[in-house]
Amino acid sequence: MQNDTITRRESVVRSYCRDFPAIFKSANGSVIKDIEGKSYIDFFAGAGALNYGHNHPALKEALLEYLSSDGILHALDMTTEAKIGFIETFERTILLPREMDYKLQFTGPTGTNAVEAALKLARLFTGRPTVISFTNAFHGVTMGSLSTTGNRKFRNASGQSFQNVTFLPYDGYVDGVYAPTYLDKLLVDSSSGLDLPAAVLVETVQGEGGVNIASSRWLVDLQDVCRRHGILLIVDDIQAGCGRTGHFFSFEKDGISPDIVTLSKSISGYGLPMSLVLLKPYLDIWEPGSHNGTFRGNNAAFVTATAALLEFWQDASFEQGMANHTRFIKEALEELSKKYDCIVDVRSKGMFGAIEMTTKWQADAVSAKSFADGLIVETCGAGGQVLKLLPPLNTPIDQLAEGFDIISNSLDSLGTGVRP
Amino acid sequence: MQNDTITRRESVVRSYCRDFPAIFKSANGSVIKDIEGKSYIDFFAGAGALNYGHNHPALKEALLEYLSSDGILHALDMTTEAKIGFIETFERTILLPREMDYKLQFTGPTGTNAVEAALKLARLFTGRPTVISFTNAFHGVTMGSLSTTGNRKFRNASGQSFQNVTFLPYDGYVDGVYAPTYLDKLLVDSSSGLDLPAAVLVETVQGEGGVNIASSRWLVDLQDVCRRHGILLIVDDIQAGCGRTGHFFSFEKDGISPDIVTLSKSISGYGLPMSLVLLKPYLDIWEPGSHNGTFRGNNAAFVTATAALLEFWQDASFEQGMANHTRFIKEALEELSKKYDCIVDVRSKGMFGAIEMTTKWQADAVSAKSFADGLIVETCGAGGQVLKLLPPLNTPIDQLAEGFDIISNSLDSLGTGVRP
Amino acid sequence: MQNDTITRRESVVRSYCRDFPAIFKSANGSVIKDIEGKSYIDFFAGAGALNYGHNHPALKEALLEYLSSDGILHALDMTTEAKIGFIETFERTILLPREMDYKLQFTGPTGTNAVEAALKLARLFTGRPTVISFTNAFHGVTMGSLSTTGNRKFRNASGQSFQNVTFLPYDGYVDGVYAPTYLDKLLVDSSSGLDLPAAVLVETVQGEGGVNIASSRWLVDLQDVCRRHGILLIVDDIQAGCGRTGHFFSFEKDGISPDIVTLSKSISGYGLPMSLVLLKPYLDIWEPGSHNGTFRGNNAAFVTATAALLEFWQDASFEQGMANHTRFIKEALEELSKKYDCIVDVRSKGMFGAIEMTTKWQADAVSAKSFADGLIVETCGAGGQVLKLLPPLNTPIDQLAEGFDIISNSLDSLGTGVRP
Amino acid sequence: MQNDTITRRESVVRSYCRDFPAIFKSANGSVIKDIEGKSYIDFFAGAGALNYGHNHPALKEALLEYLSSDGILHALDMTTEAKIGFIETFERTILLPREMDYKLQFTGPTGTNAVEAALKLARLFTGRPTVISFTNAFHGVTMGSLSTTGNRKFRNASGQSFQNVTFLPYDGYVDGVYAPTYLDKLLVDSSSGLDLPAAVLVETVQGEGGVNIASSRWLVDLQDVCRRHGILLIVDDIQAGCGRTGHFFSFEKDGISPDIVTLSKSISGYGLPMSLVLLKPYLDIWEPGSHNGTFRGNNAAFVTATAALLEFWQDASFEQGMANHTRFIKEALEELSKKYDCIVDVRSKGMFGAIEMTTKWQADAVSAKSFADGLIVETCGAGGQVLKLLPPLNTPIDQLAEGFDIISNSLDSLGTGVRP
Repeated sequence: MQNDTITRRESVVRSYCRDFPAIFKSANGSVIKDIEGKSYIDFFAGAGALNYGHNHPALKEALLEYLSSDGILHALDMTTEAKIGFIETFERTILLPREMDYKLQFTGPTGTNAVEAALKLARLFTGRPTVISFTNAFHGVTMGSLSTTGNRKFRNASGQSFQNVTFLPYDGYVDGVYAPTYLDKLLVDSSSGLDLPAAVLVETVQGEGGVNIASSRWLVDLQDVCRRHGILLIVDDIQAGCGRTGHFFSFEKDGISPDIVTLSKSISGYGLPMSLVLLKPYLDIWEPGSHNGTFRGNNAAFVTATAALLEFWQDASFEQGMANHTRFIKEALEELSKKYDCIVDVRSKGMFGAIEMTTKWQADAVSAKSFADGLIVETCGAGGQVLKLLPPLNTPIDQLAEGFDIISNSLDSLGTGVRP
Repeated sequence: MQNDTITRRESVVRSYCRDFPAIFKSANGSVIKDIEGKSYIDFFAGAGALNYGHNHPALKEALLEYLSSDGILHALDMTTEAKIGFIETFERTILLPREMDYKLQFTGPTGTNAVEAALKLARLFTGRPTVISFTNAFHGVTMGSLSTTGNRKFRNASGQSFQNVTFLPYDGYVDGVYAPTYLDKLLVDSSSGLDLPAAVLVETVQGEGGVNIASSRWLVDLQDVCRRHGILLIVDDIQAGCGRTGHFFSFEKDGISPDIVTLSKSISGYGLPMSLVLLKPYLDIWEPGSHNGTFRGNNAAFVTATAALLEFWQDASFEQGMANHTRFIKEALEELSKKYDCIVDVRSKGMFGAIEMTTKWQADAVSAKSFADGLIVETCGAGGQVLKLLPPLNTPIDQLAEGFDIISNSLDSLGTGVRP
Repeated sequence: MQNDTITRRESVVRSYCRDFPAIFKSANGSVIKDIEGKSYIDFFAGAGALNYGHNHPALKEALLEYLSSDGILHALDMTTEAKIGFIETFERTILLPREMDYKLQFTGPTGTNAVEAALKLARLFTGRPTVISFTNAFHGVTMGSLSTTGNRKFRNASGQSFQNVTFLPYDGYVDGVYAPTYLDKLLVDSSSGLDLPAAVLVETVQGEGGVNIASSRWLVDLQDVCRRHGILLIVDDIQAGCGRTGHFFSFEKDGISPDIVTLSKSISGYGLPMSLVLLKPYLDIWEPGSHNGTFRGNNAAFVTATAALLEFWQDASFEQGMANHTRFIKEALEELSKKYDCIVDVRSKGMFGAIEMTTKWQADAVSAKSFADGLIVETCGAGGQVLKLLPPLNTPIDQLAEGFDIISNSLDSLGTGVRP
Repeated sequence: MQNDTITRRESVVRSYCRDFPAIFKSANGSVIKDIEGKSYIDFFAGAGALNYGHNHPALKEALLEYLSSDGILHALDMTTEAKIGFIETFERTILLPREMDYKLQFTGPTGTNAVEAALKLARLFTGRPTVISFTNAFHGVTMGSLSTTGNRKFRNASGQSFQNVTFLPYDGYVDGVYAPTYLDKLLVDSSSGLDLPAAVLVETVQGEGGVNIASSRWLVDLQDVCRRHGILLIVDDIQAGCGRTGHFFSFEKDGISPDIVTLSKSISGYGLPMSLVLLKPYLDIWEPGSHNGTFRGNNAAFVTATAALLEFWQDASFEQGMANHTRFIKEALEELSKKYDCIVDVRSKGMFGAIEMTTKWQADAVSAKSFADGLIVETCGAGGQVLKLLPPLNTPIDQLAEGFDIISNSLDSLGTGVRP
């Protein structure tokens, strides 16, 4: 049942509050509590914005100290100690060890704003308006990003038509169409109807689209086509980045080197709004101030982001530790898959997991029953038939196990048949 | 001189750090300090995002308490105690006393996202793609908002062309063209080339555009034309709202009742990212989840926003107190205007003030000299020839006076002539 | 009453057949005959496509001879004797005497195709997508031209929205807005929302739009603004050109020199489809074949077009003779205006005349009554309240007089009041 | 060598005159003569506009008689005897025998205008802006049609970007992508990025695109997908229609029933500009006059069009006679294919034939050598590597044979190897 104040005053556009009908109050690590004191294990993690869990003590301490000392909070894009601290830490813990050379653009602190900036820059740099996106892509709902987002629910809500985006089939979307080859054909053919694009925009794992995972080979081949035709490769790592797939960037082990990378969600580490566009230095042709925004300098987020980098990415220990979690999730998914008829497919990359059901109602039922039993797990995919598993990366194994038990129990209650 | 880390790693798109070349560290009330301990009076207030000054103690206390108690920070659009608290307080302190009936949509926490949502809803509701915007308008730089933003610097940076927006002259833009009358003519004439618009999007004071102030009559006439032709009126109150003009909404005393209002910047009161779209209840036709975003539920912002409403808007005392400030600013501006040849015009609405100079270099010089002397004041306007004054609303009068003295001193140093 | 075959098989999009419900069979000079032998004086002249009347004997002879000798009729853009003949004659009779230096582009043989080519070339040459058009403009109904056409009836029929066109008020459209000055202001102001345009597209007389006549000063000032800002000036002379205003080009005496001129309608002289784009030589940057079309080489039209140039434009006699007609029309219009209350305005430029009535029903009634009495005269204007007078340029004065008598008689029958 | 007048005065956009550098004078049947008396067999037939050859005596007689009797030539869309004659004849000879029920819309007399009307109507009827087109499609170069045309040469010449068109691979375009299946998948998937289209626009044989021939199965499957999803099927039969493929409509034997069909080119039979849109009666929702155009009523074309229908389509004899020609062409092509190494593929549908070479220079060389030897044959395809054979449908077999001999001789002269 929804809260009176909410139904009276909040727009009907609200959504997650319908699926998880409680009033939440506090949170710690992988556990959320509602106002009645009930606890929920969180396999949603703020749609990927809480990869280090809620209110991590190291980040909390840094934030409280900053706030208590009247550290400057809002500074647009003026230089602050906190900002320099973040940039230097990011350079030292993320870029240099990976031998990556990117410049950092701080956009308005939403993922969609980072995507808008990336698209604008690619078009500006190449002088070409067309951009390639993929089936089931999700990149945000402001008009530039929305034009690259596949879902009709979002597209129809814009009240106007889109321009300058061509969709290609994602890896595995349809038998027989391998996008890198097909794209190459369209580009080589001067009469294909495809104008030479500025960029290809891709998620290595399509989170909203159903946890579809691109293979390394597909990504490498895609990058090859881009390179051959002078097209920029943009990886939207907003949901899959910041450790979610087992490494800081989702594509680290795929053998590609995107021209532009967008980050947001877990970059601040504490759930505070922040976004970042990484761009190869030669692309940095912006006019000063030509992409702006009031909340680019969210210094509270810089502080927690820096603390998160120091806590988790100074050395390899966290990354190595995740290997266990990754294995655990993979095995737990396979076990479920073997056991239940209604599971069509399970898949995972690092700690980005998915259980694909036969129908949407099954996925909804499992999500609802799990919530009743103390687990927050969301559905995704074009048809809403996929359970998306996004536990905080540092969730203790026993809590992971507990979460999977709740899911298993919910699957039992579906009564759709257990494989013999 | 810019900081090494910044020049090495931050995109050249950075902007304010060029005009105000210090490294800022802490802030309190209307004063910012850099790492060398130098203090600056802040007449910029985060481009209007810090109407109650930096780190206000009442808001700070509420925030520290919330963080310390592990209040849930990131909750997408799930229901939280903090969110209910904000909604109820907003209803009680803002809507009910003003007899306003709006539903609240929480969008991604940037002004541009609120504008995108407003434009989408207007188009969706009316089934018409065209929107009217105004010369010198600024509504953000994501593609939907950017199409309504007048400035070529921003427009050219998009690398593509825009659609579905027609610009009309703002109040006073050019002699002889009174937009409400002209718009009416274009609408009545079925052959004018103007397709029936979904909405008119307007700022009551154009902040970025040069602190251009629309008269009440113009706003009322504009609303009349909208009503007659079934066009929605959207007021973008992101910069001018939240008390800046002397009242909570900038249009409160203008006699209009917009169909949609966008708020952001100072709504959280503490510089934390937050945005809000107010919509007349009959417009609330969104599909659940059809405009989404990861950081809609920035609970830290809800907490400070609630504290700000309780601190400043529970009763009329703050609003009444601002009358003094308003008068002070008005008189100080007029005095300057009388004194200096190079001042073309001064104007203000509440605590939104402007000094228009003859040329951009004069405005730049005054801004730079003032900064050297310990005052942060920014320029704006199409030609950059306007000094924009946005002191925190609760700046003590003596600090206001000090700020004006610095400006006066900077004007002296221009050596362009003092009126006899 | 409409014909059975027509109502059964022709799309309801048909239009003039509704206003002039006869079945036409033959025509000669300024007179058309229907199958029942009834004659009509033609004050419509194929909407300006028959400036030399129907089936002029000199043109007819040339055409019959060409056809009889199996002259090649359809030749795409291959070189033919007939085409060379036309080009040389056009050069000799039109361009050289007027000291005009244009290259000729033969587009698909419709006015709208010529406009499409002109718009494409202007955008291609300048690298800018925006084009300026005017209130009440009509340039055709294919998508490129349609985006510059003001009338909602046509615009709404496209089923999609338009891009890259900004409309400004035509000369005299609304008090206080002088488009050249206003456009200059929008261009000088970098924040006006108007991106630098490729071209200004203008009719010197807006035929469909209500026979609105631009003053020479307005045209010259418009050209000045274009020159100052590097914008191309395109004159659409499709309806007003080929002698209609008393000279070959409508703008000959206005003191302007357009960068591009579109011609069609009466260029073939015999009602045969033909179009022509004149472009200043430095603009001729097309790739060979990049604007094509099957019927560019309508050699029958070249033959009659050449004959028309030889018949009417070899020397000044035809042009001089038209002065009488021009005067006659002007005086006849003024007389009507003085006599009838229901006439709001009369205007003419050369032999392009208009009677503006108070209401559409009056104009319709006059047109209908005139048709019954043997005169074809059409209405135009956004509200359909204008009678448009387009008699063939060589209509004998007594037939002109007869036509005006019929109109006068129709006005009488309105019974709306004769001025005392 | 090009003609002086042409190079001095005609825009460089001219094209065919470069490939066929003669000055043509007269023509008869399948033979054209230049001013020096040299004869050329015509395997080009006005790019398909002269399916009955040049100046056919029956059509010529009808036209001369009409002109001599001062039949009305230009009548916009007023009702004329000639128009009724055409409509009734078309109904009787084409529609009724084929049990087709279409209404006729006469648009401006160019193919692109017919396509523009078809696209507008489809969008207007469905209320959806998106249209599906295909790789290598050519539908014209006005903006609406151009957005559905694949070739970059044409697209880039527009100077702006396009909207609302998605391209799919044509039949056989690329291994593994069968457009009907793929389109169905994109439509069923609500997150594919493809908005529900108004229409699918398709040529059964892509003339400009390289004489690519869609199979019946592909067309039927495409129609099935359209039907299932409420999408209109538009067949652009401008080049392939009017008998070219052996039957009046190119799709007659394919088992489809398009919602809209566009005709132009050979519909007048005599090379005179004329266009026609056929629309299923329930689609006829135009407002009167909402798609107009000056030369819709080209009565000379109605007269020859009627004569052509009477001459060739009153009974089955012409159609049956073409079977011989079809067989002859097929066999001649296969023979060439067997003989020459440099021929990659030959294909034909009825009398629409193609020889695909390895490279563009080969095709150009064969075209040039053939021209020198008295045959006009053009190249097409994205890479210009295809010789397109479009002889008049009534070319005597011995002239066909002579043409093929010239081609064979040109192939010999390439010296690229004759298969052993």
